[in-house]
Amino acid sequence: MSENKIPYKIYLDENEIPKQWYNVRADMKNKPAPLLNPQTHKPLKAEELYPIFCKELVAQELNDTDAYIDIPKEIQDFYKMYRPSPLIRAYFLEKALDTPAKIYYKFEGNNTSGSHKLNSAIAQAYYAKKQGLKGVTTETGAGQWGTALSMACSYFGLDCKVYMVKVSYEQKPFRREVMRTYGASVTPSPSTTTEVGRKILEAHPGTSGSLGCAISEAVEVATKTEGYRYVLGSVLNQVLLHQSVIGLESKAALDKYGVKPDIIIGCAGGGSNLGGLISPFMGEKLRGEADYRIIAVEPASCPSFTRGKFAYDYCDTGMVCPLAKMYTLGSGFIPSANHAGGLRYHGMSSTLSQLYHDGLMEATSVEQTAVFEAAEKFARVEGILPAPESSHAIRVAVDEALKCKETGEEKTILFGLTGTGYFDMVAYQKFNDGVMSDYIPTDEELQKGFDGLPKVD
Amino acid sequence: MSENKIPYKIYLDENEIPKQWYNVRADMKNKPAPLLNPQTHKPLKAEELYPIFCKELVAQELNDTDAYIDIPKEIQDFYKMYRPSPLIRAYFLEKALDTPAKIYYKFEGNNTSGSHKLNSAIAQAYYAKKQGLKGVTTETGAGQWGTALSMACSYFGLDCKVYMVKVSYEQKPFRREVMRTYGASVTPSPSTTTEVGRKILEAHPGTSGSLGCAISEAVEVATKTEGYRYVLGSVLNQVLLHQSVIGLESKAALDKYGVKPDIIIGCAGGGSNLGGLISPFMGEKLRGEADYRIIAVEPASCPSFTRGKFAYDYCDTGMVCPLAKMYTLGSGFIPSANHAGGLRYHGMSSTLSQLYHDGLMEATSVEQTAVFEAAEKFARVEGILPAPESSHAIRVAVDEALKCKETGEEKTILFGLTGTGYFDMVAYQKFNDGVMSDYIPTDEELQKGFDGLPKVD
Repeated sequence: MSENKIPYKIYLDENEIPKQWYNVRADMKNKPAPLLNPQTHKPLKAEELYPIFCKELVAQELNDTDAYIDIPKEIQDFYKMYRPSPLIRAYFLEKALDTPAKIYYKFEGNNTSGSHKLNSAIAQAYYAKKQGLKGVTTETGAGQWGTALSMACSYFGLDCKVYMVKVSYEQKPFRREVMRTYGASVTPSPSTTTEVGRKILEAHPGTSGSLGCAISEAVEVATKTEGYRYVLGSVLNQVLLHQSVIGLESKAALDKYGVKPDIIIGCAGGGSNLGGLISPFMGEKLRGEADYRIIAVEPASCPSFTRGKFAYDYCDTGMVCPLAKMYTLGSGFIPSANHAGGLRYHGMSSTLSQLYHDGLMEATSVEQTAVFEAAEKFARVEGILPAPESSHAIRVAVDEALKCKETGEEKTILFGLTGTGYFDMVAYQKFNDGVMSDYIPTDEELQKGFDGLPKVD
Repeated sequence: MSENKIPYKIYLDENEIPKQWYNVRADMKNKPAPLLNPQTHKPLKAEELYPIFCKELVAQELNDTDAYIDIPKEIQDFYKMYRPSPLIRAYFLEKALDTPAKIYYKFEGNNTSGSHKLNSAIAQAYYAKKQGLKGVTTETGAGQWGTALSMACSYFGLDCKVYMVKVSYEQKPFRREVMRTYGASVTPSPSTTTEVGRKILEAHPGTSGSLGCAISEAVEVATKTEGYRYVLGSVLNQVLLHQSVIGLESKAALDKYGVKPDIIIGCAGGGSNLGGLISPFMGEKLRGEADYRIIAVEPASCPSFTRGKFAYDYCDTGMVCPLAKMYTLGSGFIPSANHAGGLRYHGMSSTLSQLYHDGLMEATSVEQTAVFEAAEKFARVEGILPAPESSHAIRVAVDEALKCKETGEEKTILFGLTGTGYFDMVAYQKFNDGVMSDYIPTDEELQKGFDGLPKVD
């Protein structure tokens, strides 16, 4: 098919929604390092994870051999509610940039959670329901994950308890109301409802919270409440597995038109979107079938890939969770107060960390004012007001497209537009008012986080 | 094609986006009454409208003979940014209601304006640009129209001045920020920036504003500022014309599967969505080719169809606009303070008013608590958090589907889901907290509005 026949939006047919998730770990020569017991520092056995996670999710978490895992019928049905998501050819943006680059983005924001998070939320809720649980607990930062989980739990009739990072809870009351509309209870974290929350509040009175704190609280409640388990929206292997639908759909849509991306770009907080978007492409790369330049984009204020250490670390601030080997800033790291939006987790998916360590992908960091400049430009020409998180990817996609303008190269760029910014207008207001600031942590500040890393042999 | 082959979401191809708008007035035996000069009460000539509207839009406003009007290439291109919109088969809702009814909805909310308003905004901005104007002025209530116009003006590089009903401006600061992100200026109305605004503030100190006031202000600024014209997001014939894309796409999607709706339902404030959704179906009805039951749904707190008078009235509170013959509550009518969301205009599209008067459609009114109950149910099972306005149509669609459950009839219901409720969380919060109230104006209250109707022979 000739290139100019490519529509603005490529929608797959409903029956082309993936029926299996792709597990990139199966194709990795160097597998991600195993989770460790936080006390003994020995690799965790499945049974040790059962008090925290559903059994089937534990199996997915530990499975690094099966390349494809069937998507249960119930989840496939739910996916039809909002998938396939469109792969959009950014003709308007290309024109505005006057670039010979061809830009595509996979838009995951056309659902009420406002992001890709629903892809894993529905899977985790399904397995919880199947195991006969009463409910699940979780944390949420920017709020997309909490909203997605609320929607998924409402669908399966599960109770949903969300611990929301206090600064987001206060800045985003409307996110809270969406979750409540879907029947979830929302508690600002750190809270006095948990032991770990009370401890953190005592040590850091007036703290505005962090994802690490909220995780500790949610895990405590899950493990102490009969019939509950904990679920997490990023970082974990199982989440990347579920999110592979993003990449599988993107690849199927591009394949239809014989298009092969040169560069694939995704924002990276814990890695859920990036890991999902790149997975089938990375699989080809790992199997030596194709090559792609893959770029992770993170905030300069929370630079786990670009300035973190590749080491075992706690997944949470309360140090009750397993240890994971990952690029990390230390579980005590909290981004500066001026940091808007998500992408604020101290660590990074073990799978992506290993791939990055092995030189299979790049990483770069960007400052938030530059990110919002790109967001505004994008909104005005492509018509979608992007989430701050997604706008990190936009920033680098625009920069790569502008490089093509200089060199005259007709590169094909694919990036992940994870979501919409409708609940991020406080941040946009700061940008509109010209009072948004940037912050890059000093080496000394980062060292404090590294000092808290556990000693693992 | 067999019924069970109908997918959850029917997307037309990009090349199936309508290339002509359909003008239902061409098929009406009784044409809508002409606009009158507010001073002389004589039918307005095109020239008299040129200081307010662009010339081509005046032509569209007055054209009641051409059934099809070409959509300019530039507008077709823009439509590709967010159209075709999906026609969704509400399988999840049908199952939750346990109804034999087949429910479809045309979802217009998947764009950053959050509603169908963009369909007319881009057309009006295009003609303004084509006429060489510098900018446009408008009013906005709930905010969708203002956002849509901001997006459209940003696309064509036009200045955009929005007068936003004060109560919405205060309750929806984030809507304002979206408009600012697209480069618009937003002023709460009534304001001291206009003569009419100052007059209204003097007469009603502390008023929270109304659409009628905001229209007066926007018209004043447009007519007094060189290179500006006024644009309106509803009520006008030209708006219904542009919005016919909703109905044309809906009908094309249903025709593909051989489906013919029995009942068509739309919410009605000024009539932009309803008029657009029903237009090709109404055309068939007018030409005697098919029959449909068509239901307009309005808030019980602003019941222009069901309790208004069919009379000539001012389109604005300041009485500077032309007179239109319509179902109206009087230009001084302001819905009670507890009324959430849009659908708060005192009048109704002349075209729809005539169709209703001629018995070609029905109207019903619903109270807002019942509306939000339907909205919550819909959000939980269909996964889309609906706008309060759209939820009026959901309420009646659900009620009709429940009637089918009682009678066992397998009716096919089509309704318009005009938009999303992401900026309406103050209202949802009231509902979630159980403090939402209903209000039905008394006959005496309505009489006050009727007393202000102009005397037209």
